[in-house]
Amino acid sequence: MIIDIHGHYTTAPKALEAWRKRQIDALADPAAAPKASDLAISDDDLRETIEANQLKKMDERGIDLTVFSPRASFMAHHIGDFATSAAWAAICNELCHRVARLYPERFAGAAMLPQSPGADPRTCLPELERCVLEYGFVAVNLSPDPSGGHWTAPPLHDRSWYPIYEKLVELGIPAMIHVSSSCNPCFHTTGTHYLNADTTAFMQCLTSDLFTDFPQLKFVIPHGGGAVPYHWGRFRGLAQELGKPLLGEHLLRNIFFDTCVYHQPGIDLLTRVIPVDNVLFASEMIGAVRGIDPETGHAYDDTRRYIEAAAHLGADDRHRIFEGNARRVYPRLDALLTSRRKPEWT
Amino acid sequence: MIIDIHGHYTTAPKALEAWRKRQIDALADPAAAPKASDLAISDDDLRETIEANQLKKMDERGIDLTVFSPRASFMAHHIGDFATSAAWAAICNELCHRVARLYPERFAGAAMLPQSPGADPRTCLPELERCVLEYGFVAVNLSPDPSGGHWTAPPLHDRSWYPIYEKLVELGIPAMIHVSSSCNPCFHTTGTHYLNADTTAFMQCLTSDLFTDFPQLKFVIPHGGGAVPYHWGRFRGLAQELGKPLLGEHLLRNIFFDTCVYHQPGIDLLTRVIPVDNVLFASEMIGAVRGIDPETGHAYDDTRRYIEAAAHLGADDRHRIFEGNARRVYPRLDALLTSRRKPEWT
Repeated sequence: MIIDIHGHYTTAPKALEAWRKRQIDALADPAAAPKASDLAISDDDLRETIEANQLKKMDERGIDLTVFSPRASFMAHHIGDFATSAAWAAICNELCHRVARLYPERFAGAAMLPQSPGADPRTCLPELERCVLEYGFVAVNLSPDPSGGHWTAPPLHDRSWYPIYEKLVELGIPAMIHVSSSCNPCFHTTGTHYLNADTTAFMQCLTSDLFTDFPQLKFVIPHGGGAVPYHWGRFRGLAQELGKPLLGEHLLRNIFFDTCVYHQPGIDLLTRVIPVDNVLFASEMIGAVRGIDPETGHAYDDTRRYIEAAAHLGADDRHRIFEGNARRVYPRLDALLTSRRKPEWT
Repeated sequence: MIIDIHGHYTTAPKALEAWRKRQIDALADPAAAPKASDLAISDDDLRETIEANQLKKMDERGIDLTVFSPRASFMAHHIGDFATSAAWAAICNELCHRVARLYPERFAGAAMLPQSPGADPRTCLPELERCVLEYGFVAVNLSPDPSGGHWTAPPLHDRSWYPIYEKLVELGIPAMIHVSSSCNPCFHTTGTHYLNADTTAFMQCLTSDLFTDFPQLKFVIPHGGGAVPYHWGRFRGLAQELGKPLLGEHLLRNIFFDTCVYHQPGIDLLTRVIPVDNVLFASEMIGAVRGIDPETGHAYDDTRRYIEAAAHLGADDRHRIFEGNARRVYPRLDALLTSRRKPEWT
């Protein structure tokens, strides 16, 4: 089967955006804040937005299952305070849960966290536990920059993040390191901030010994790892100068890259430079880049085509990228599939 | 000939660093600030640091000439105010000028600017003019983030930068878009901040119409363009969604990438994805990554080897990368070489 580990609910019903607008408008006047119960989205609304979009494209592209989380750019942790983020995350996560319940064969949930600038990461634990233990979510998105492009949080190796990591290890789920929208005019959200955050997160891990403290912790760095695979020699050399072990030992037991790289040469480089066991299929479809590439006639984000066309990959490599690695890195997803009698290679 | 367009004086005599330390220590007490004349570095001091380092490696690697600017990580525009940066830039630029005068066949100067957070970029014009008109410098390094990782300056398309661009066009020199050290703990200077700034600068150009206003302006984006070539499909797709022209027309008449990418697969991707006319040879040697790559037995930053080994490049391609493009993008360098009877292909 083919598992896309990186999908967001970018097509949620407009009522969601309207609710968020009311929430933001009410920041100056908390009494005017909408209640969660003010949001009315029916199962039919969900079906309509999913079947005409994600599910349609998954069928067209032959993708069996998507790990599905709230829209990344809408997380906007920088807006309001913890209470703002908590109310918003709860709503967005519940919608993804409902989608996964409507299409249990096609979607597995991943959570956003109610992060907020300056708030102790520990405050995110109840929502994380709820999503995993009650909703059956298989992963979480963790932003290294809740400020939205001002980078005011400490690096990921700072001990203030450790309660999150302890919980992730306890629950057995990986974290995708994914920022939200940028409110810094220097950074375009999907063209700059996402890629910069990927590179930043990798280097924060490289300079630290985070995975010595958490040998079971797993980070998925999206968007093909930002600039990292393209500059793999630079990172190998920097690790060497810093007296760190080889990257394979130092980081690649814990860090994985997705395949959201929207042209053939990029995927070729990724899958040549990074060990196949560390590459997980993903498209982030109906996301940052929705057009048709005039050079190929196919959607930029139809990343399956690039994997299929990478001549140096064998059938076993492709299997690992499409399915095997995801089942290893996302053990709760594997358990879910196994419970449904979907052993690997089916 | 082979021109390395990206070299910094990373090996300057220790007296320079000591002077800078005194300058920084005196920030709280301006009366204690050292004078420029307190710095005593003889020509022999310069020769010693250059001949044992840059010149030695240039000879080993067959590099004829290096465009040579002050050490990037030491620019540290975020320290002090404009006066601090002005005194420091003047000293650093003069040292590069002296090196270029001692070895006129081997080095051509490029300036750092006395940028300072919040200061009008116009304040940099006198130093820029001095370096080009008095010292004969052929390029300048322009930081899009004088704050050192806090990204508080407006994007490069903001009109506050325009006086710099007008002067660059008037003088006929390109700007390398190069940040300095990061004082934000999120960003490792050479592993994160440099690459992020490259990507950021490119996207700031992409979302704007800067080169419609300045069709003659030339930006060199170092470190192989950060994440850009690896994600070329993403950037093509984003330009398309933003209703911009194709990147070749929109940006590639004005933006060039250097070859500071420290492994073969990266250089292969760069030279396959980006038109050869937009790729300029560079190594940033004795810079961020100084070690020997155990996988090749050669220095990571010996980038000439990667260009030579890129099988898809022909002799004419290599000539353009090694020399021809530099002479086109750096017209004052071309004039200098021509005046010395060094026509192309010699």
